[in-house]
Amino acid sequence: MDMKTPVQKVNRKTQSGSPFAYDGLSRVIHERARLGVLTCLVTHSRGMPFPEMKKLCALTDGNLNRHLQVLVEAQLVCLVKGPERERPQTFYRISALGRKRYLEYLAVLEQVILDGAPAARTVPEKSPEL
Amino acid sequence: MDMKTPVQKVNRKTQSGSPFAYDGLSRVIHERARLGVLTCLVTHSRGMPFPEMKKLCALTDGNLNRHLQVLVEAQLVCLVKGPERERPQTFYRISALGRKRYLEYLAVLEQVILDGAPAARTVPEKSPEL
Repeated sequence: MDMKTPVQKVNRKTQSGSPFAYDGLSRVIHERARLGVLTCLVTHSRGMPFPEMKKLCALTDGNLNRHLQVLVEAQLVCLVKGPERERPQTFYRISALGRKRYLEYLAVLEQVILDGAPAARTVPEKSPEL
Repeated sequence: MDMKTPVQKVNRKTQSGSPFAYDGLSRVIHERARLGVLTCLVTHSRGMPFPEMKKLCALTDGNLNRHLQVLVEAQLVCLVKGPERERPQTFYRISALGRKRYLEYLAVLEQVILDGAPAARTVPEKSPEL
């Protein structure tokens, strides 16, 4: 995978002189637990039941419920019925919109890394005492 | 820059079966505005005065103040006196600890991208209707 170029062109606030605003880091996706949930769902495109997701994301029932509610309300995640007819189970699945927004979000994350990583790896001339 | 390999090895919750927990996304750094501020400061290792930072990060006085306070309390950012003797100005500078924590944080971000990007770029067999 070529990670040298961002997933897609990022709309940066360069024209207004604010390259570190990172407006594209959508608050719905950026929240740590929701970022984990969405990454989990994007890698399991057929969907996933609540208990499995809870385990893979290390979240409590209450937390996962709350974050799923936000994601469903934003139409990034949808509910689907599982394949087992005898014991029907609700699956959560990332929506087409969710996939699109997630990709846009990743593009900004990649931009953050491109901006910060080279400088962070360089030891400054005069290192602060802290 | 080689972005195919993470900045450093990430301590993932794979042993406990929670690969999407992303515990390493420190809440102090992950908050969007603070991530912008730290990325700004890491790329300006000599430090930066408040007004310039405010502009580059597109933050209000109140917001930048609040976020800097959190970063200073966490010892990720420190205050230094500027070089101009006649008009002394306070500069904010990323600390050695801040640089270390920022690099650790970036390593987890890179892991998120490595986990999510390949799947997100693949169109699923049965695309949800949303």
